[in-house]
Amino acid sequence: MITAPDNSQLKLIRKLQRKKARDESGLFVAEGEDLIAAARTHSFEPEVLLWSGDDVEPELLDRVSSLGSGSRVIGVYRKRFSEAGGALSVYLHGVSDPGNVGTILRSAHALCDGPAALGPGCADPFSPKAVRASMGSVFARPPAQANLADLAGTTVALDGAAPDTVGEAAQVIEPPVVLLVGAEREGLPAEVAEAADVRARIALRNDGPESLNAAMAATIGLYELRNRVNPDG
Amino acid sequence: MITAPDNSQLKLIRKLQRKKARDESGLFVAEGEDLIAAARTHSFEPEVLLWSGDDVEPELLDRVSSLGSGSRVIGVYRKRFSEAGGALSVYLHGVSDPGNVGTILRSAHALCDGPAALGPGCADPFSPKAVRASMGSVFARPPAQANLADLAGTTVALDGAAPDTVGEAAQVIEPPVVLLVGAEREGLPAEVAEAADVRARIALRNDGPESLNAAMAATIGLYELRNRVNPDG
Repeated sequence: MITAPDNSQLKLIRKLQRKKARDESGLFVAEGEDLIAAARTHSFEPEVLLWSGDDVEPELLDRVSSLGSGSRVIGVYRKRFSEAGGALSVYLHGVSDPGNVGTILRSAHALCDGPAALGPGCADPFSPKAVRASMGSVFARPPAQANLADLAGTTVALDGAAPDTVGEAAQVIEPPVVLLVGAEREGLPAEVAEAADVRARIALRNDGPESLNAAMAATIGLYELRNRVNPDG
Repeated sequence: MITAPDNSQLKLIRKLQRKKARDESGLFVAEGEDLIAAARTHSFEPEVLLWSGDDVEPELLDRVSSLGSGSRVIGVYRKRFSEAGGALSVYLHGVSDPGNVGTILRSAHALCDGPAALGPGCADPFSPKAVRASMGSVFARPPAQANLADLAGTTVALDGAAPDTVGEAAQVIEPPVVLLVGAEREGLPAEVAEAADVRARIALRNDGPESLNAAMAATIGLYELRNRVNPDG
């Protein structure tokens, strides 16, 4: 039972809240029984696994938790990445909000056969917020690290100014398909959108907001493309 | 220029981070230039409006900000609610995450002609996190407060166990349509799902996660129903 706040495992967990420490060590943290169970299901062996009250005094674990509520269990795992690919996948460019990145990992896992590929300027998918938002999909389907040039297949850039909707574009494209999603306000950089095979927008009301949340836009785009690409078949 | 930390306007802003204070006063807080601009566009008159450096010392404003980064401007506004209705709208039951509630306000504003209706157990749409996630849609299209019995039209319950997909259900329903969305894990309570005219699921991969984030599910459901209901027409 750990009773000292300066215990090296507790210090490691706290340190891994920072991206630099995750980059240097190749490790990341998952909190809570559901994420720990997802890690186990997908054969991630914990480097550290501390159960509150069994392995460590509850208040010491709460102190290194990134959750306001504290945690029943915290695990440290080694990062994994997938190879980009699949009949349907998503590529993120400049999606800097960790909650959005994690949510898109989850949606991509629900709708695609390929991993989410993370390009320049994306939030770290192994940050505590992204891991939590992924609800375990970061273990089930680790993300890929990619550049636009690495992507194979028809690239469809989400672009609010495109004349065609994603639904229209989906009728005429052949798999493999990669949906390209940019930052929430700026969208994709011009050179990325221009390099795409197809540009398409999500049909929104004229009197509504200019855009959707980046995770919403990615999810609708994948949902619509999936009807065409059928990555289960 | 406010230079005293115990200034009554600063104290009000801080107090309004708590739901009880918002309920009692009928007021809420918006931070940042984009939200303040959205409030102005939609004729919300600020009860208090403090610009950093002009009206208040920057560090005093930062201290009452709910953002880690501090704020350029903070406004206090009076809450407004809409009447439930429209050819297409969404009803939330037990959606307790404020970020999800705010994101759904934004998606509903982009895809529906009716306001999002909030039933029992939902997060306060006027909390700082929900207001921020709404990206101004809370001003453009204030939410409705409703119970299931108040809703007029065909009710479509999102239910992961339903045999039909939302796309299939959308083919056979007549507007007005209200999409019913429940809590992320538990879904809708049985009595709500059973009272709905139609139950439908979002088609997901078999080997993916059991569910989508509640805001993703609501957004896809509305997107699919919109193709049928065409609330612009």
